Amino acid sequence: MVYLRRKILLSGTALNQLQKSLRWSSSLKIRDKNEIRPERSFKYADLSVRLAAPHQLQPKPNVRALSFGKYFTDHMLKIFFYETLGGWQTPEITPFENLVLHPGAKVLHYAIELFEGMKAYRGVDGKIRLFRPELNMERMNNSAVGSGLPSFNGNELIKCFTRLISIDQEWVPHSTAASLYIRPTLIGIDPTLGVSAPDSALLYVILCPVESYYNTSMENGVSLLADPRYIRSWPGGCGDRKVGSNYGPTIKMLKKALKKGYQQVLWLYGEHNEITEVGAMNIFMVYLNDDGEKELVTPPLNGLILPGVVRNSILALSQEWNQYKVSERKIYMKEICRLLSENRLLEMFGSGTACIISPISNIGFMDRDFHIPTLQQSDPIYKKLEKHLKDIQYGYIPDHPWTITID
Amino acid sequence: MVYLRRKILLSGTALNQLQKSLRWSSSLKIRDKNEIRPERSFKYADLSVRLAAPHQLQPKPNVRALSFGKYFTDHMLKIFFYETLGGWQTPEITPFENLVLHPGAKVLHYAIELFEGMKAYRGVDGKIRLFRPELNMERMNNSAVGSGLPSFNGNELIKCFTRLISIDQEWVPHSTAASLYIRPTLIGIDPTLGVSAPDSALLYVILCPVESYYNTSMENGVSLLADPRYIRSWPGGCGDRKVGSNYGPTIKMLKKALKKGYQQVLWLYGEHNEITEVGAMNIFMVYLNDDGEKELVTPPLNGLILPGVVRNSILALSQEWNQYKVSERKIYMKEICRLLSENRLLEMFGSGTACIISPISNIGFMDRDFHIPTLQQSDPIYKKLEKHLKDIQYGYIPDHPWTITID
Repeated sequence: MVYLRRKILLSGTALNQLQKSLRWSSSLKIRDKNEIRPERSFKYADLSVRLAAPHQLQPKPNVRALSFGKYFTDHMLKIFFYETLGGWQTPEITPFENLVLHPGAKVLHYAIELFEGMKAYRGVDGKIRLFRPELNMERMNNSAVGSGLPSFNGNELIKCFTRLISIDQEWVPHSTAASLYIRPTLIGIDPTLGVSAPDSALLYVILCPVESYYNTSMENGVSLLADPRYIRSWPGGCGDRKVGSNYGPTIKMLKKALKKGYQQVLWLYGEHNEITEVGAMNIFMVYLNDDGEKELVTPPLNGLILPGVVRNSILALSQEWNQYKVSERKIYMKEICRLLSENRLLEMFGSGTACIISPISNIGFMDRDFHIPTLQQSDPIYKKLEKHLKDIQYGYIPDHPWTITID
Repeated sequence: MVYLRRKILLSGTALNQLQKSLRWSSSLKIRDKNEIRPERSFKYADLSVRLAAPHQLQPKPNVRALSFGKYFTDHMLKIFFYETLGGWQTPEITPFENLVLHPGAKVLHYAIELFEGMKAYRGVDGKIRLFRPELNMERMNNSAVGSGLPSFNGNELIKCFTRLISIDQEWVPHSTAASLYIRPTLIGIDPTLGVSAPDSALLYVILCPVESYYNTSMENGVSLLADPRYIRSWPGGCGDRKVGSNYGPTIKMLKKALKKGYQQVLWLYGEHNEITEVGAMNIFMVYLNDDGEKELVTPPLNGLILPGVVRNSILALSQEWNQYKVSERKIYMKEICRLLSENRLLEMFGSGTACIISPISNIGFMDRDFHIPTLQQSDPIYKKLEKHLKDIQYGYIPDHPWTITID
């Protein structure tokens, strides 16, 4: 049987660490907490499992040629919601299979859809770990409330997909350069046209063994195009929710960036070109501030950006280390240009579950290319953060309070 | 066999009328015309038809209890696109059936999806007519280009779904209070996670016999909630494309409006509360201007609103009639309040394919209710426009150049 175990060493240090992490956790700034109804949830205790027949099992791909989101494991989790049947139905694990959807399903017309991204890591001790999944559940419920989709008890979902991972555990790569990507998805499936809140939904979870999202980025850094004519999100919108609508409209700009030789888009906002996100990542900058101190800075959670779990973790670790100043504030393109010209900009990097940390080497802006010296630093903060996160995720630090071990 | 016939009386009047309509047509302001590749299209000549078996045919619903988007006809049109197979595949008409989608399909995660809305009308002469479908095709291709989805030759799609309508022609209501709603939908279906332009897509068309979208609105008018904290679209976004992402994020605000007793949302933008759209409609205002003239005004196509086909037609008809002043310009909430206090605001109404024209009777704004006297006018413009559009659509004016007759 699968059960969850959160190993917390109640030593003074660990407790201190946990309290700090909780302080930062609260800064995910979930907007509609009071609209989430965990009491009206499916339950892990009701989970049914139908295993794939032996001939349905897929061969596992080479761990060194996984790319991102291309291979899927043998099973999936499905939970239907029908308002007229009392809400959430019983969770079921089934063989991985296609979905059968009515052509009028709301997800296909009005983007009534949201998702999450998490990973399961095979540690150096052979154990499989999840990283702060409760934050993803909080954010997922927030996205649901904002989309008129039903909310649920996050712990019950964690238990359900932990069971799924346990069944497909041989798909968790035996490698510290890869992991099993977990994609919970929630879609509106009412078979009626017309823009309205859905009363039927499907929550499903699929799993993909993956390499890093931007595979060459750690060595070469990513190259970004910043074009003020394209805006990803805006105040009063949904830029802080992990909903499909934050991604579809970015494709055109992404294509444009790729065509010009850039790998990702740096999203700007407002007349002063505030930087917000990069591709599907949060963004960080390390610079020498006016007092000559090293400072790590990242845009604030003001509704324009996704409250990232890795972002939150980077802030928490940095606070705990207390080796450089940390702040959340707006960063403008003008400031980046000025800091570069004064040789005070040291590093820029993106953070996200898919990439963990992705150093930035170049920004194209207003027909100029700005070289960011992230990879030229002798002892960069991004590397230290990346190593520490990996140490937690892959069990080099075996009992970190941010991990849940799947036994 | 189905063929298209555009009946244009080449009398001086009709020609004049057509030229005027074409002038306004160009104001749909399609952004990326040069990126549309009609030469790389599926072709009507390749269409295959598989008819439903007799036992699959559904009973037709009562034409007086259709509501919107609830019943679907017996057949559908499907056209797949696979980049690796050379692009568009051959169009096929099949029995209406569920779609089978990979759980990783991009439409389900990243809202890579768009749609159109048109209607087929059963005229008083028994003939079935389409209304300016070429404009919907232009807009659909524009949405496709903006979503990284493949474009196509709009005329070929019109011919394909005209055939579909012809097969399901008994589903076109024998009523001038109902019609057959046509929903072309284009979705990205690549079975891979990761935000990128899709290389697999499905274009499908489904049909629904429908009543008016807001069924009681013609008698009572619609009541709108305007809340500046929620923003539908913004410059540099996709508010002028008919993509799913413009709808999903509006659900929360719509729910809020319904809860407060309003029927729809009036979307505002910017610090001066510019009005943009209402629900899924364009918006119009009739008022007495500073010169004491009656003036019809509607927000401009500045990227924040959908370039509506009915909007375009209302402007074209108004120009042709030359009985009141017509302008496209920004309208602010402040102006609405002022005009109301001076008894100079006469009418407000929404326009769209689903509702045609929907008079507005009330706007809730800043905790106040503003009564709009649209229904109190003795000879309102909205009624005249609505009657004229219906006269064209239902063949009271039998050979209008805006209609295509399905024989």
